[in-house]
Amino acid sequence: MAIPHTPSGQVVSVLPLGDRLAQATSSAILKAGQLEVMRVVLRTGKSMREHHTPGEVTVQCIEGAVEFKAGGTTHMLRAGDLVHLQPRALHALTAVEDASLLVTICLAPG
Amino acid sequence: MAIPHTPSGQVVSVLPLGDRLAQATSSAILKAGQLEVMRVVLRTGKSMREHHTPGEVTVQCIEGAVEFKAGGTTHMLRAGDLVHLQPRALHALTAVEDASLLVTICLAPG
Repeated sequence: MAIPHTPSGQVVSVLPLGDRLAQATSSAILKAGQLEVMRVVLRTGKSMREHHTPGEVTVQCIEGAVEFKAGGTTHMLRAGDLVHLQPRALHALTAVEDASLLVTICLAPG
Repeated sequence: MAIPHTPSGQVVSVLPLGDRLAQATSSAILKAGQLEVMRVVLRTGKSMREHHTPGEVTVQCIEGAVEFKAGGTTHMLRAGDLVHLQPRALHALTAVEDASLLVTICLAPG
């Protein structure tokens, strides 16, 4: 979470990092009263072990490829793929290519 | 709102429509308890007049270019640009190129 949050009304780029992805780390984009947005960077072979959040989440793959496990199902997420999770839905991720993901979290508990 | 909502846990593509953009219309992607996601298609010169939503919103430009007015400020949104709005924040849009936008709405009132 290396960069400051972007104020409401300000524009931030969530384009693919491309050549910069190899050196990038996960970063906060914004945290407001109801929504939190971050870019998660996951290097090939790295995982986020099973976890959940109190509120709903969308995960949008910006670049790369991630194996996404939720609800007993595994999907491969590639650029442009978006998935929604219900509150407290357990999920786990493993990057099969260097990847960045735009994660939008509803901060209200479900 | 031509397509059915995507169930939670299912993957949906939010890639640029590219050549299909000229014939596309706005479409619902998902509506759950807390989050609603849609793709808004706006043709060159078309506007969404000033409006607001009860909860917070993020607007991510997928393709094209949109003049985005909020809080007395005008930004040009191009592919990869994301902006966050507070609850009840008035905003208006005019496409300066055929555009599609990924709009994520928090359904809880702010």
